[in-house]
Amino acid sequence: MVFTCDKQQLQDALTLVGRVVSSRTTLSILECVLLIAKEDEGIILCASDLEVSIETKAIPAEVEVAGSIALDAKLFTDIIRKLSGDFVTVEVDDSQTALCKSGRSRLKIVGQPPDEFPLIEMDKIDEHGAVNNRYSLKSVVLRDMIKQTVFSISPDQSKLVLTGELLEIKENALRMIAVDMFRISYRAEKLEGDVLECKAVVPGKAMNELARILPAGDEDEVSFFFTPKWAVFETGSFIMVSRLLEGDFVRYDQIFNEDFSTSVVVNRLQLLSAFERAVLVAVDSRMPPTQLDINDDDLLIKAHNERGQVNDGIPCETDGKDLSIHFNPRYFIEALRAIEDEKVVIKFNTQLSPCTIRGADSEIDCKYLIVPLRPPA
Amino acid sequence: MVFTCDKQQLQDALTLVGRVVSSRTTLSILECVLLIAKEDEGIILCASDLEVSIETKAIPAEVEVAGSIALDAKLFTDIIRKLSGDFVTVEVDDSQTALCKSGRSRLKIVGQPPDEFPLIEMDKIDEHGAVNNRYSLKSVVLRDMIKQTVFSISPDQSKLVLTGELLEIKENALRMIAVDMFRISYRAEKLEGDVLECKAVVPGKAMNELARILPAGDEDEVSFFFTPKWAVFETGSFIMVSRLLEGDFVRYDQIFNEDFSTSVVVNRLQLLSAFERAVLVAVDSRMPPTQLDINDDDLLIKAHNERGQVNDGIPCETDGKDLSIHFNPRYFIEALRAIEDEKVVIKFNTQLSPCTIRGADSEIDCKYLIVPLRPPA
Repeated sequence: MVFTCDKQQLQDALTLVGRVVSSRTTLSILECVLLIAKEDEGIILCASDLEVSIETKAIPAEVEVAGSIALDAKLFTDIIRKLSGDFVTVEVDDSQTALCKSGRSRLKIVGQPPDEFPLIEMDKIDEHGAVNNRYSLKSVVLRDMIKQTVFSISPDQSKLVLTGELLEIKENALRMIAVDMFRISYRAEKLEGDVLECKAVVPGKAMNELARILPAGDEDEVSFFFTPKWAVFETGSFIMVSRLLEGDFVRYDQIFNEDFSTSVVVNRLQLLSAFERAVLVAVDSRMPPTQLDINDDDLLIKAHNERGQVNDGIPCETDGKDLSIHFNPRYFIEALRAIEDEKVVIKFNTQLSPCTIRGADSEIDCKYLIVPLRPPA
Repeated sequence: MVFTCDKQQLQDALTLVGRVVSSRTTLSILECVLLIAKEDEGIILCASDLEVSIETKAIPAEVEVAGSIALDAKLFTDIIRKLSGDFVTVEVDDSQTALCKSGRSRLKIVGQPPDEFPLIEMDKIDEHGAVNNRYSLKSVVLRDMIKQTVFSISPDQSKLVLTGELLEIKENALRMIAVDMFRISYRAEKLEGDVLECKAVVPGKAMNELARILPAGDEDEVSFFFTPKWAVFETGSFIMVSRLLEGDFVRYDQIFNEDFSTSVVVNRLQLLSAFERAVLVAVDSRMPPTQLDINDDDLLIKAHNERGQVNDGIPCETDGKDLSIHFNPRYFIEALRAIEDEKVVIKFNTQLSPCTIRGADSEIDCKYLIVPLRPPA
């Protein structure tokens, strides 16, 4: 294998796939990036951690001899970054040694045979030709949908399906839902045209990686589809494939409730910073139970523990009864950071039933449900 | 103690002293910042790790009741940063509880008695009135002098005096010297007026902290003096006091040698990036011995180990004999990063004797000595 390409393009592609590369594993091939040089096409880079794989679209290159090799991703990336020239030539010999040349610099490193690399082949994913529907969204929209929900996935590995996000296509919209024991995050977005209904649970790690690498240009689109075992996301620069999680997801739609006995409209950033102050007295990661007292048009936020005591007050518009209720402040902070509106509407029922939060103005279909803490005896 | 002050000024002062505060110690008072409120003066903040102390100049404040308290530095800094108003009022009661108020926010935390704080009192430092000479430099100059030398202090705790930097005042100049087993960094700067000769060894940690907090304005000055046990650095915003290290420092001035059998002039950034590429094949922190081959007006840089092989070539202007010599590339990298000139002059004698490096053009009196590695058998 021998090719010459633009150094910056190769470096950008390495950065793109690099996040999926494992850093310390017992399988050293997983610390590698797979380079494939195809005549008349260019260079393709692949990385995989067995759950998630990323494959770049072809980078333009002058391919003298086609071939492939697996190279230590971190070392190869550092080498490309540190080369001084604008172009780099990579020559791989039969002993899997790669020589990287640029200007008068020569760096030689030993690679691994490409056939050891756990490449997920696209034609295996859709082997029965089952995929008859692809969906499409603006790349930045999908990225925001992930960021506005993924923080609510469950950390509990004993209920694996909840460590992922539900992607549900229903009523011509994509709904994304993340759930743990104490909260639900929900975000939906209309899809163009008539789309088949479908659902899949994608691991949180894959969703996080996807949000990081989705292109941010106004014109960038992402298309995606699901098979019974895989989710596939494709942009102009890469294809990401993630294994799906199996199991029954929570029936979230029956839990959100528009009834309320108390509803408040409050400035989002003021409420967020009050909760952020409550968290200051957290001891390690133990959050102080935070009390919300709604008295007419005034919202009091209180927390105390062995470390200290916090009191805050914010004006609000209240509809309904006064209420005193306790929450884990972290759940409120994450939801309030995800919403973009100036004001939020929070709907409560009893001291023991979940509240819902959503933006007061925006058209974005985004809502959060949080289960309260039992009031201290 | 009761005072009101500008939130941003208090936050800046906390950031200034914060670096000296220990984060996890067995002595919880060392995790505190000491606040002293003086009527007609304002607020003074102090932090200490027993070796280094920083005391701010008074921050303007409306002091209703004078007094002092020691507060957990991290918690208090986070509280001040998160308060929403522009001003903050701090009220301390007899039980050492501090109430921080801003707008409608109230945060209450428990402090510690101020007399437990290991305050280094300035009048104790100069108790015999021994200090009869203060020196003065531009703040940015002292900062650069530290940065250009401090990386060479010895990591070896068994020879404690070499874990510090020698500050020597001699021939109307300040010389700063850092030495470990394999190298010496030297930087000198003229002082104004007639100054008394003097020398002191300041711990590397104090020097590093000082370089970080020295004000960077063109007009900022730093004045400093030494007692037999202490170094004191004073700027418009703080006084830093550091304990000195005891012991005999290396007689560095006899080691630098202007004789050479080979001298090269070479582009600094080209040589730096060649060494940086050699370091890419380092295994953990084990650096590959890096060979310099000087052949007429060409400098070859080579390194190899089990991880890979690096070859580079740079044009140079050579005066003297051809030479082949090995170095730890890290020492060259640090010296070449510290120099500011476009080109450097490197003078060699034999394969086994140290080389010296200095800028080819600049007026800055800055030089480095590096001991070579024994060539592989």
